[in-house]
Amino acid sequence: MKSARTTKPHEPLEVQQLEIPKLMGPQVLVRVHSSGVCHSDIHLWDGGYEGLNGQILKTTDRGVTYPLTPGHEIAGTMVSLGDQAEGFNKNEKVIVYPWIGEGLCPACRSGEENLCDKPRSLGVYLDGGYSEFVLVPSYKYLIKIDDDLDMDAAATLSCSALTAYGAVKNADLKPNDNVVIVGTGGLGLMVIQLASAVTGARIIALDIDDDKLKTAKDSGANDIINSKKEDPVKAIMELTNNLGADAVIDFVNASKTVEIDMQFLRRAGVVLVGLFGGELKLGLVSMPTRAYRLIGSYTGTINDLVELVSLAKRGVIKPLISNRFKLDQTTQALTMLKEGKIVGRGVINP
Amino acid sequence: MKSARTTKPHEPLEVQQLEIPKLMGPQVLVRVHSSGVCHSDIHLWDGGYEGLNGQILKTTDRGVTYPLTPGHEIAGTMVSLGDQAEGFNKNEKVIVYPWIGEGLCPACRSGEENLCDKPRSLGVYLDGGYSEFVLVPSYKYLIKIDDDLDMDAAATLSCSALTAYGAVKNADLKPNDNVVIVGTGGLGLMVIQLASAVTGARIIALDIDDDKLKTAKDSGANDIINSKKEDPVKAIMELTNNLGADAVIDFVNASKTVEIDMQFLRRAGVVLVGLFGGELKLGLVSMPTRAYRLIGSYTGTINDLVELVSLAKRGVIKPLISNRFKLDQTTQALTMLKEGKIVGRGVINP
Amino acid sequence: MKSARTTKPHEPLEVQQLEIPKLMGPQVLVRVHSSGVCHSDIHLWDGGYEGLNGQILKTTDRGVTYPLTPGHEIAGTMVSLGDQAEGFNKNEKVIVYPWIGEGLCPACRSGEENLCDKPRSLGVYLDGGYSEFVLVPSYKYLIKIDDDLDMDAAATLSCSALTAYGAVKNADLKPNDNVVIVGTGGLGLMVIQLASAVTGARIIALDIDDDKLKTAKDSGANDIINSKKEDPVKAIMELTNNLGADAVIDFVNASKTVEIDMQFLRRAGVVLVGLFGGELKLGLVSMPTRAYRLIGSYTGTINDLVELVSLAKRGVIKPLISNRFKLDQTTQALTMLKEGKIVGRGVINP
Amino acid sequence: MKSARTTKPHEPLEVQQLEIPKLMGPQVLVRVHSSGVCHSDIHLWDGGYEGLNGQILKTTDRGVTYPLTPGHEIAGTMVSLGDQAEGFNKNEKVIVYPWIGEGLCPACRSGEENLCDKPRSLGVYLDGGYSEFVLVPSYKYLIKIDDDLDMDAAATLSCSALTAYGAVKNADLKPNDNVVIVGTGGLGLMVIQLASAVTGARIIALDIDDDKLKTAKDSGANDIINSKKEDPVKAIMELTNNLGADAVIDFVNASKTVEIDMQFLRRAGVVLVGLFGGELKLGLVSMPTRAYRLIGSYTGTINDLVELVSLAKRGVIKPLISNRFKLDQTTQALTMLKEGKIVGRGVINP
Repeated sequence: MKSARTTKPHEPLEVQQLEIPKLMGPQVLVRVHSSGVCHSDIHLWDGGYEGLNGQILKTTDRGVTYPLTPGHEIAGTMVSLGDQAEGFNKNEKVIVYPWIGEGLCPACRSGEENLCDKPRSLGVYLDGGYSEFVLVPSYKYLIKIDDDLDMDAAATLSCSALTAYGAVKNADLKPNDNVVIVGTGGLGLMVIQLASAVTGARIIALDIDDDKLKTAKDSGANDIINSKKEDPVKAIMELTNNLGADAVIDFVNASKTVEIDMQFLRRAGVVLVGLFGGELKLGLVSMPTRAYRLIGSYTGTINDLVELVSLAKRGVIKPLISNRFKLDQTTQALTMLKEGKIVGRGVINP
Repeated sequence: MKSARTTKPHEPLEVQQLEIPKLMGPQVLVRVHSSGVCHSDIHLWDGGYEGLNGQILKTTDRGVTYPLTPGHEIAGTMVSLGDQAEGFNKNEKVIVYPWIGEGLCPACRSGEENLCDKPRSLGVYLDGGYSEFVLVPSYKYLIKIDDDLDMDAAATLSCSALTAYGAVKNADLKPNDNVVIVGTGGLGLMVIQLASAVTGARIIALDIDDDKLKTAKDSGANDIINSKKEDPVKAIMELTNNLGADAVIDFVNASKTVEIDMQFLRRAGVVLVGLFGGELKLGLVSMPTRAYRLIGSYTGTINDLVELVSLAKRGVIKPLISNRFKLDQTTQALTMLKEGKIVGRGVINP
Repeated sequence: MKSARTTKPHEPLEVQQLEIPKLMGPQVLVRVHSSGVCHSDIHLWDGGYEGLNGQILKTTDRGVTYPLTPGHEIAGTMVSLGDQAEGFNKNEKVIVYPWIGEGLCPACRSGEENLCDKPRSLGVYLDGGYSEFVLVPSYKYLIKIDDDLDMDAAATLSCSALTAYGAVKNADLKPNDNVVIVGTGGLGLMVIQLASAVTGARIIALDIDDDKLKTAKDSGANDIINSKKEDPVKAIMELTNNLGADAVIDFVNASKTVEIDMQFLRRAGVVLVGLFGGELKLGLVSMPTRAYRLIGSYTGTINDLVELVSLAKRGVIKPLISNRFKLDQTTQALTMLKEGKIVGRGVINP
Repeated sequence: MKSARTTKPHEPLEVQQLEIPKLMGPQVLVRVHSSGVCHSDIHLWDGGYEGLNGQILKTTDRGVTYPLTPGHEIAGTMVSLGDQAEGFNKNEKVIVYPWIGEGLCPACRSGEENLCDKPRSLGVYLDGGYSEFVLVPSYKYLIKIDDDLDMDAAATLSCSALTAYGAVKNADLKPNDNVVIVGTGGLGLMVIQLASAVTGARIIALDIDDDKLKTAKDSGANDIINSKKEDPVKAIMELTNNLGADAVIDFVNASKTVEIDMQFLRRAGVVLVGLFGGELKLGLVSMPTRAYRLIGSYTGTINDLVELVSLAKRGVIKPLISNRFKLDQTTQALTMLKEGKIVGRGVINP
């Protein structure tokens, strides 16, 4: 089978011919139809993240080994089942839950494999979906999808939408809460769709791009603020009777945005933080006196993904696919994403 | 009536003779038997807190006015009821919930007056318990206590124990969680008592004083670590099979301790933070990738206090009173507390 | 002021001229614009409910006294405030939370006055809204409403919509749950609106009237079943891949419907039950082996009502008003309701 | 290997010589040290339960097939691992989580395999622990236990203690709740131990046997009532200031006890129900007006079991083993249990 692989950091991905894996026990083999292209694939390609004091957190220190087939947002069709696998038929359409844990740590025991202490995520620690076929460790990580659900859209549920959904759940929104969404790219828009579908909260979108803000409004935002044109703190205070926001979901998560978040956050407010990094200087005394919560949110559980599939099936949420690539275009796909040239989500169709 | 009052920041408290208030509507008058002496009374006396970059957050900017009768941990007996007050008899023993809100903000609406946007806490915004009598805005802020419950001990439930309990609830501990308590002073010991009474979690106490750690052990800690004698990160990793702590309740909350907390904290861990202040440099990228939660915890609800009274009544928790002062000794009491000379809790007996 | 009063069970309501109450403490006086007509007003008029073995539970045994001014769904304008009331201006539009408790029981302490052990609900234990003016015990029971919100619609939020919302919350629905709504009258339709606004669950509506079912579909039901025309158990099993319903909200709550509910309920399912009464023979062994939950749901908290006002303000839910009556038409209003001639909700406009 | 098997209902169990299973994929083989004897083993032996109107619910209708090796409370040592199993070493002591699901239903997806729609529980649907060896479908169903934990006691954690713990969790007790435990046999005593370890609630034990009640008191009950000697409704009302119980955990769950439960249950109270069966006539109108909850509780999740192991390891709970049997004494063990001659818990030591 052909797989596009990261052989080592910064090098172009290489399409290699690999053996189709033999199945054992509960394993299944899925023919990949779509594999989403995600920011974290860039981190794998770069070989690291920026941490405190400009220090680089290397992916290899977190257990990643190269060469690696990236791709953790996978939709496809069932090819074959190991002799202890069951519940699926050949050619059935499925999406794959990629945030696989080792099964024995406290997080795994309570059904949160995405928070496993020793993760084995597909496309990160195990070979993923930039490939004609992907080996999935158990049929239990598959979710059937309906024939009428677009597979490119379905693929993006397992990370892009799941991360958005995890953030919405962590924000614990009520119908009389005001939530500010900082950044209305793909994740921000999905948060807006999800928050309006399942929370009833009032949604305030914040960005510096009027076109994106218009899309945010169409996706369910009640109010929009262009922070280039008006002071976001002042604008949010006006929109909330001077109470401030109950929660902020910040997909930028740079020092600059989080420092501003804290200024329009209400007592007992929640900030959820994205992946851009940098560092925050936090005044520790205001944490208890104002009962602030800073919550890091990381993907979601397989049950969350089942819920998303149910919502997508009924058209309640609609992932937006903007670019499609072939297996030999993965380097180009990652480059475009890195340069901010992909609006919505790109997918690989091997 | 005699009241010991802070006339302005840094001046000795002054015992003044005030008129006994006339009661209206649901108000009640309580004869103060005991009024606890709390660290935040020192902040009121100092006129402020230390915030970011050494900046002082002034109490007057938060709405405090002087002269003020401090004292928010109040136990006493019922003297008289306004004509819309009810449910209590003359001379009944009561404790007072001091974290009173204005009643209409979202926090108040959901029963969390302690998180009110416009608080009217007794001893902070309204005259409190360093006085022979205290005016309480409504009989609804009183809780009956049994005759056999010591009133000095009961008084400290409404802030010291309530803050400990709020932290325990926010940590959301399960029986297979490991929780590290940083600092085993009065609050830390109460957390240990409460966590062993209602969570079943394994408790690891961290301090630099062997005597305090011995008391921590007697109060229910499963393991103790003197961080002067051994590396706390290494010790905690060993105690937890290299998994790290599920939660940390840090009553020091200085930059130094929180930075160490983050090193022995497990993925998806929780840090709860105390009042000492200073600032923390936080690497924003590890918040989502490790799903960390930083939670500021502030006192508790009246319902939490009802629960504490129930526990204290049955002897499940035992607040420790170490010093007793008269009304003309309040300056001395605050000075001793400031200088770290009060072990356990001091109370004023007017 | 003129009030329409139930002088004793079964007699026509009588319009009496009463003194306008003098205000004390935190009390407020509201000029009634709209007062909803509710099934429980019929029970007050009848003097009782049907309980076990045909036995009548008398309202007077539950503490109701006659004469009584009914009416617990009240919207109006502020007239005057007691000297400890605050936060509202004259002529402001408000709705009234009627499920008032005595303030000291465990339910009240935790913000659930609707479940008070010694309730003082307006229009049930205290005079209510079938009157030109209503005395409200505290300004804290008022919620401001916007000028553009219709007052007749707003009035019905405080019982009809609140009961629906309480049921939705008690059902604890997730986006991949199937919930069956039994009975698509006013309450059923409001449940459908609310469940689609805040849960993302798939909604199956069950009734015996095609017109009502069509409205249910328009209100957000995903599937509809006419149980006169097809076997509801079979139909629901087919719609749910033979798994059964995760939850049933039954607004009929007669023996017959609940017995059927149990047949299409899935393992670990929830039944929430309405007010029609009668008795159920329950096989006790299937409760644990199938982990069933039978949950009685009763109105909601003031915070729930604040959430509903927020949803109604943004047009997310739209209460349906079908009939309007004057103060001298209250007997006629109750009679029409009893005879099933009011579709949607009737209101009194004094 | 030798296994004691139920060949068909009512016949004496037969010790058969079976082949030791060959391991595949993630399967593991455990040498059984202890296998608890449970009431539900009697139902398997009887071939059914008593349901509504005296009707028998047959085990074969629920998917049980005979011959069957019963035994779902299993502790033992690791013998060998399938080629995809990991995380355990030969001879390590383990207990087995027996409530295994098929993995794809909504309950399994959310980590509640005990509520699976198509269960494969060990000792019920698959061969269990009345045997020298047991085949476990995956290493993920094992939990390591410490060398100092008694294996007979450990075995009973996976059903007896787990059922008690599930009930405690479903009762959602707070420290100021009063909970009544009806029946202080093995399960009732474990509930008392658990409720006092992790909830802080006040515990009232109800039985008709003074000796058992004394043990209940020693295990943590705050109050005891012999319902043969005093009226339980009156006694509980007196103990609770006439408020009634917040929750009842009824391990008898016969019509008679549940009818009494409802009389001392407070508004918004919870009844959890055991396995004895029979039927209850329930007045449907009081369900909503009094906001009652009837909750069937069935075992618990693997995470609950991990929590129990943690509590047992630290000595917080102490399962009581009263009788030990050999593999050829299983018929005798079941007979003694049926006749009420086992106090505490019996185990088979193959």
